[in-house]
Amino acid sequence: MKQLILIRHGESEWNKLNLFTGWTDVDLTEFGRKEAFDAGLLLKKEGYKPQMCYTSYLKRAVRTLNQVLEAMDMDWLPVEKSWRLNEKSYGAIQGLNKADTAKKYGDDQVLLWRRSFDTQPPALDMHDERSPRMDPRYAELSDSEIPLTESLKDTIARLMPYYKEVILKSFNRYDTVMVVAHGNSLRGIVKELRNMGNDEIIKFNIPTAVPYIFQFDDQMKLQKEFFLGDPDVIAAKMQSVANQGKSK
Amino acid sequence: MKQLILIRHGESEWNKLNLFTGWTDVDLTEFGRKEAFDAGLLLKKEGYKPQMCYTSYLKRAVRTLNQVLEAMDMDWLPVEKSWRLNEKSYGAIQGLNKADTAKKYGDDQVLLWRRSFDTQPPALDMHDERSPRMDPRYAELSDSEIPLTESLKDTIARLMPYYKEVILKSFNRYDTVMVVAHGNSLRGIVKELRNMGNDEIIKFNIPTAVPYIFQFDDQMKLQKEFFLGDPDVIAAKMQSVANQGKSK
Repeated sequence: MKQLILIRHGESEWNKLNLFTGWTDVDLTEFGRKEAFDAGLLLKKEGYKPQMCYTSYLKRAVRTLNQVLEAMDMDWLPVEKSWRLNEKSYGAIQGLNKADTAKKYGDDQVLLWRRSFDTQPPALDMHDERSPRMDPRYAELSDSEIPLTESLKDTIARLMPYYKEVILKSFNRYDTVMVVAHGNSLRGIVKELRNMGNDEIIKFNIPTAVPYIFQFDDQMKLQKEFFLGDPDVIAAKMQSVANQGKSK
Repeated sequence: MKQLILIRHGESEWNKLNLFTGWTDVDLTEFGRKEAFDAGLLLKKEGYKPQMCYTSYLKRAVRTLNQVLEAMDMDWLPVEKSWRLNEKSYGAIQGLNKADTAKKYGDDQVLLWRRSFDTQPPALDMHDERSPRMDPRYAELSDSEIPLTESLKDTIARLMPYYKEVILKSFNRYDTVMVVAHGNSLRGIVKELRNMGNDEIIKFNIPTAVPYIFQFDDQMKLQKEFFLGDPDVIAAKMQSVANQGKSK
């Protein structure tokens, strides 16, 4: 059996403040670190033994992974980081309050920016201080790779080469692989694995810091997928994500 | 200019208890985490910008690196872990108290085990529960690679292929590289870089969580080496390491 463990990062400072985050590199809250550590304890208790880990270039994902590995007592596992696992870029609305933005532009427009498959928020200027071009960690990206704004469709398009060429191929060597990333980059993986339509994936909310397990046979045919943990807690977490970005 | 930053992990639980640690995978103390975080703050303040990081398979080193990267706000940096950067194996005396061992065998014997260049402590049995063979993280090592005990000479011998083939060669791609490891694996690197004799390296104590900077010209000829930080604090830390393992 092969297993893929997906984990969305724990609560971040800007989740708490209800701001559009995207590629902004904000930290976890204390609660977010604890959520992540607890996810690691649960994986350990249930006997999961990942052999390879992937995460994004954003600290809320890296630090979630570090907490998970500390809790599992598996700090020695190899980790590869990639910008392709980053959250969807929210372009020029990054840093704006979700509820204020909803009041100004209407719930429907904000829902489109957050949850439409192919509508992009307004773009950043390449030389905006929030542009990835101004950040040394993205120095190796070509201008055409630098996202100044993204729809979910764009996010999935830049994620897929990494998912297919690196993560999926690593199952040639490993039985269990763990990916710690973001709501929308993980949506890309879930859409692919579960063969979901565009409308279906938009409505699908991935709870924070809950291990989402995909089990495959040795030919990588999906056998089973489930969230690990208390169903009531998971349902409450999914509802809390769905409620963000409403004006009231 | 090329730069190599060496950092010895912060205080560990067993440093504090004065036990022989070696390959035992013990955690940092709270003080050790703070030392590590402070080292990161100092590197950041002084403008160091590493591009690649190496560490061992032992959590006291990995967690030190995580603290350094958090403090530098550079969690996104690539990290490679290798067993070849692990501490010297203390064989069958791992887990024994340094002062008790000194009382039983004499200061001179313990000093030989700790600080002779080529005397090995008594070996572990391959099937001892403390043997690396019993630990899945070392599954890929051949029996001849598994250290059941090591002299400093042995430690350097298994470190050197990694240092030369991986760390040094990474300067073809990067200008600044950081290695977070252990007292004796770092001795191997320092001995090589400073062309020290066997007797000289034995007496050389590397303080915990102090960035040790080596600067090279573009042909990798060593120009300058220094510890970063307050000289009085560094001298006190070096003395504290030298005093460990005395019977009184």
